[in-house]
Amino acid sequence: MEALDAGVPLKEIVLADGIKHDRRIDGIVRKAKAQGVPVRTRARSELDRRSDHGAHQGVMATVSPFPYLPFEDLLKATHGRASSLIVVCDHVADPGNLGAIARSAEVVGAAGLLIPNRRAAQVTAVAYKSSAGALAHIPVACEPNLVSCLKRCKEEGFWVIGASEKADDDIWHAPLEGRIALVMGSEGDGLSRLVAETCDMLVALPQVGKTGSLNVAQAMTAIAYEWLRRNGADGAGEDA
Amino acid sequence: MEALDAGVPLKEIVLADGIKHDRRIDGIVRKAKAQGVPVRTRARSELDRRSDHGAHQGVMATVSPFPYLPFEDLLKATHGRASSLIVVCDHVADPGNLGAIARSAEVVGAAGLLIPNRRAAQVTAVAYKSSAGALAHIPVACEPNLVSCLKRCKEEGFWVIGASEKADDDIWHAPLEGRIALVMGSEGDGLSRLVAETCDMLVALPQVGKTGSLNVAQAMTAIAYEWLRRNGADGAGEDA
Repeated sequence: MEALDAGVPLKEIVLADGIKHDRRIDGIVRKAKAQGVPVRTRARSELDRRSDHGAHQGVMATVSPFPYLPFEDLLKATHGRASSLIVVCDHVADPGNLGAIARSAEVVGAAGLLIPNRRAAQVTAVAYKSSAGALAHIPVACEPNLVSCLKRCKEEGFWVIGASEKADDDIWHAPLEGRIALVMGSEGDGLSRLVAETCDMLVALPQVGKTGSLNVAQAMTAIAYEWLRRNGADGAGEDA
Repeated sequence: MEALDAGVPLKEIVLADGIKHDRRIDGIVRKAKAQGVPVRTRARSELDRRSDHGAHQGVMATVSPFPYLPFEDLLKATHGRASSLIVVCDHVADPGNLGAIARSAEVVGAAGLLIPNRRAAQVTAVAYKSSAGALAHIPVACEPNLVSCLKRCKEEGFWVIGASEKADDDIWHAPLEGRIALVMGSEGDGLSRLVAETCDMLVALPQVGKTGSLNVAQAMTAIAYEWLRRNGADGAGEDA
C-alpha cells in the first residue's frame, strides 16, 4: 500500500491463494486497479520462495527497475537551453533526502539529477515517497564516475558549483546565471575531495544561527531557488 | 536513547530495579551521565504504573515540559531591531515538519516561532530530532489565538506575509525587507481563512515543475533565505 501511495512504478501485485480479503487487501486491490497495476493470485509457496524470510503477509509487489537515464541523454536534453540546472548528489546517503532533493529539483524546473551508482542512496520506494511523486517526472542519471560526468558538464557549457560550508563565496554573489551543475555533498562528510577539486567554484549558504547547518535537502532547496530567481521562473528551461 | 540523541531536555531517567545491564542500557546510562541527566533505579511496579500499558522495556525518561515563551516576550526581544523574522505555523500538523521549520528558522537567525496550542504539532521528541537541536536555541511561543498574535505583530511594526500557492505576487517582488512575520499554512489545507484575511499580503513561491508543490518546510526554507538575502546575513538581528 505504501508503494502504491508513493506512486512507485509496479509491474504486478501478487496475492497468496486463499488470502482473506480484509480491508487491507481490498484497499490494495482497489488502488492497484485504479493505477492499472495487474493483480494476480499465486500459491503461497511461491510467495514464500520469492520473498525474504517469507515475510510477505500474503501480498507482494514486483517493482520495475527505476528507468535511470544515461547521463549523456540528460546532457542532450539541455542542448539549446541558455539556462539549465543539473543537481548532482555526491554520495547523499539517505533516500529520504534524495527524494526531497528530487522534489525541489523538479519544482524549480531542473533538467535532472545525477547520482553515483555506489555507496549512495538510489531511487527506492522511500525516495519515491519522500519526493511526493516528483521522481516520476524528473530524469535521474546514475553513473559510476561523478568526476568524469562533471568534466562532461564543463564541456557542455555548464558552470560546476559545489555547495560547501567552508567556501568563502556565498550563493548570493556567485554566478548562478545560465547553465549550472549544482553539487551537494553527503550528509556526514560534504563534498568528496576529488569532486570538490573538479568544481569551478565552491559556494556557501550563509548561516547566522547557532546550531550550525541545514539538512542537505533544505540547503539544496535554498540554492535551487536562488538559481530560479536569477534565471527567471518564466525563462527557466526556455529555448535560448 | 532517541530522546538523548535528539537533545530533548530530560529531567531524569528511571531504570527498573534488577534490569539487565546490556549494551542498550549501558549506552543510555553513559549518554545520560555525559549530558548531566540523573539516572535512578525504581521498582518495576512503579514504572508499570507510570507508563502507558507498561510498555517501558525497563527504562523511562521524565521529560521537562518544553519552555514555551509568552508571545509578548518574543515580541519584546525584537524591540530595536530593524530587521527581524518571526515564523508562524498556522496549524502545521507533522512534528517532523515543525522541527525542520525550526531548524531553518534558527539557521537564518529568526527571532522565533509561533505555533497554535491546539490541532497542531507541538514541540515533541520527534520535532526535536527533526530540528537537529535547533529547538534548544530558538524561542517558540504557543498561543491560543494566532489572529490576535498577528494583530500584535502589526502593532509592533511587523509586515505579516502569508505563504499561499494561490497568491498573485511572488516572493522575489514582495516587500521582505525589515520586520516580517512569515505565516506558513498546514500541510493539507494551507492557510486558514481568518489567518489569511489577517495577513498584510499573500505571496507565492514560484513553481515551474509538473508535480505541484513543495513540502511546507522546504517552502519555508526558500522564503526564509529570500528574507535573509534582502536583509543581509551580516545585518540580520543587528540593532537598528
